Amino acid sequence: MPRSEPRHRDAYPVFETIQTRWNDNDQYGHIYNATYYELFDSAMNIWMMARGMLDPAGPDPIAVVVENGCTFFRQVSFPDTIHIGMRLAHLGNSSLEIEMGMFRGEDQIESAQARFVLVSVDPQNRRPTPFPDHQRQALATLRPC
Amino acid sequence: MPRSEPRHRDAYPVFETIQTRWNDNDQYGHIYNATYYELFDSAMNIWMMARGMLDPAGPDPIAVVVENGCTFFRQVSFPDTIHIGMRLAHLGNSSLEIEMGMFRGEDQIESAQARFVLVSVDPQNRRPTPFPDHQRQALATLRPC
Amino acid sequence: MPRSEPRHRDAYPVFETIQTRWNDNDQYGHIYNATYYELFDSAMNIWMMARGMLDPAGPDPIAVVVENGCTFFRQVSFPDTIHIGMRLAHLGNSSLEIEMGMFRGEDQIESAQARFVLVSVDPQNRRPTPFPDHQRQALATLRPC
Amino acid sequence: MPRSEPRHRDAYPVFETIQTRWNDNDQYGHIYNATYYELFDSAMNIWMMARGMLDPAGPDPIAVVVENGCTFFRQVSFPDTIHIGMRLAHLGNSSLEIEMGMFRGEDQIESAQARFVLVSVDPQNRRPTPFPDHQRQALATLRPC
Repeated sequence: MPRSEPRHRDAYPVFETIQTRWNDNDQYGHIYNATYYELFDSAMNIWMMARGMLDPAGPDPIAVVVENGCTFFRQVSFPDTIHIGMRLAHLGNSSLEIEMGMFRGEDQIESAQARFVLVSVDPQNRRPTPFPDHQRQALATLRPC
Repeated sequence: MPRSEPRHRDAYPVFETIQTRWNDNDQYGHIYNATYYELFDSAMNIWMMARGMLDPAGPDPIAVVVENGCTFFRQVSFPDTIHIGMRLAHLGNSSLEIEMGMFRGEDQIESAQARFVLVSVDPQNRRPTPFPDHQRQALATLRPC
Repeated sequence: MPRSEPRHRDAYPVFETIQTRWNDNDQYGHIYNATYYELFDSAMNIWMMARGMLDPAGPDPIAVVVENGCTFFRQVSFPDTIHIGMRLAHLGNSSLEIEMGMFRGEDQIESAQARFVLVSVDPQNRRPTPFPDHQRQALATLRPC
Repeated sequence: MPRSEPRHRDAYPVFETIQTRWNDNDQYGHIYNATYYELFDSAMNIWMMARGMLDPAGPDPIAVVVENGCTFFRQVSFPDTIHIGMRLAHLGNSSLEIEMGMFRGEDQIESAQARFVLVSVDPQNRRPTPFPDHQRQALATLRPC
C-alpha cells in the first residue's frame, strides 16, 4: 500500500495554530491517533468559522465529513504547539477535499498528513446542496500556490 | 475518488461490542468523526488485550498505528450500542492492516468502515520488529472466512 | 478540608456498568481525572434515558449540571470494567443532588466518589422549572435504602 | 448547599490562555461539564511544565489529583478563547490546593470556578513525598495578592 510522503510547509497556503492538552497524550506518552483527527478537524473548523463559513445554528449549508484518513510520520506530544497547514485538493459542486499537514513547533516537515472529504448539506434535511458563493470564495483561498 | 461500499456483518469474522457515551455526540447530535477512530481503536485494543497481544507495560513488541482512514455511511449517536467487526486485510512480517465495520444496534449493514495499518515495534527503541508467533496465531483468527 | 470516606456497594440502590476505553488512560497509565466525570455523567445519562427522563430533542425540561466534584481514592485503568452506583442525596422542586461511587470490577469498596448537583431547566429558555411528575417518580428510586 | 460566588479577574495572580475545540461542545452546544476539568487541568499543567515543575519522565515528585470540584455559573462554548486564573489556596508539606477561575474572552467575571487538591508523590512508588524546594518557590507565585 502506497504511503504518502511528508510534505514541507511550502505545500500549504494557509495555517492555523493549535494548542495541545495534557490528555492528548495516551499512555505511550504521545498524541493518540484519534486525537490527530480532533486537532485537524478543529483547525479546519476554526478556519471556516473565522470566515463565516460555519455557523452551527445558522441557515447556511453545513459541511459534514464523509471520509477522512491520516498518515502518521513522526510522533507529536503535549506540550508541543502544532501548526496545521491546509490546502484544497478538490472543490466540486457540493463536495470538497482538503489536505492538511501537522507541523510540530518550528518543524518544516510535517509529522502527519490528513485528508478530509466533506459534503455540503442542508442543515435541516441533511441532503447534499451546493456550496453558497461566499463559501466557494473562501475555499478558493485554500488552493495550493 | 472511489468510496468503499458498506459491508454486511458476514464480511467480518470477529466482533467487539462498544458502549457509546453522552459526549461522543457533537453539537449536531451525532458521533463526532474523530470519535469513530476512538471507538474502532478501542475495539481493536480490547480484542488484542483479551488475547495477550497488547500489554503496554510488558516486553512484547507493541503495534503502533502508521496510517488509518474511515468512510462514514450513516450517522450513529449516543445512546446507540455499537458492534465493531474486524478482519485481517494483510499480515506482513512486521506490519498488518485491519479493516473494521461499525454496526449500530441490530443493523446488518455497517454505518462506517475503517482501515488501520499497524507496525510492530520494539517497546523500548520503537523500531520495527517482527510479530512474535503467539501474536501471529491470534491475528490469523481475524482472516475473513 | 474533610475528605469523604470510600463507601461500600451497599450504599447505592442503583448501578450502571460502564466500559473503559484505551484513551481513558493518560500518560501515567491510569484514568485521567476529567475522564472520571465523563464516566459518572454517562452512567447518569444512560440511567435517565432508559427511564424516559432525558430526551435531548424532546419538550421536557432538561437537567443541567451546576456543580460537581469528585474524590479519588484508588486508581482505575483501562481495560477495567467499572460499575457506577447512584443515590439521591437531595430532591428539591427544580434541583437535585446525586452521589455516585465508582467500583472497579468486583471491588466492593469504591475507587472514587462524586456528587453532581443538577437543575431542571426549560429546554428553550434554559430557566429553572420544576421536575415533571414522571421524572420525580423515577428519581425517587434512587433514594438510598 | 452553599455555592461559591463568581470572582473577578483580580482574584487571580496568574493566568493561562486556553483554546477551545469543536468537540468541547456537547449536543446542547456548550462545553461539556467533564471538559471544564480538562481545560482547568491543562492550564495547570501548562503553567507547571513551563516552570520545570512537571516532567512526566523525570525523577522529581509528581502531583496527583486527589479531589477536585467545579461550580458552573455561565455557559462557555467553542470557539470562545478562555483564560484560566490560578491562585494557591493552601500549600502543605506534600499537598496543595489550587483554585481556578475560567473567564470567557474579555469577561471580567468568571464563568466557572474550580478547586483542585493535589498530593506530591514519588514517581515510582506513588507514595506522598514533600514538594522539592524549587517547586515550593514556583508555587509561592500563585499566592493571591
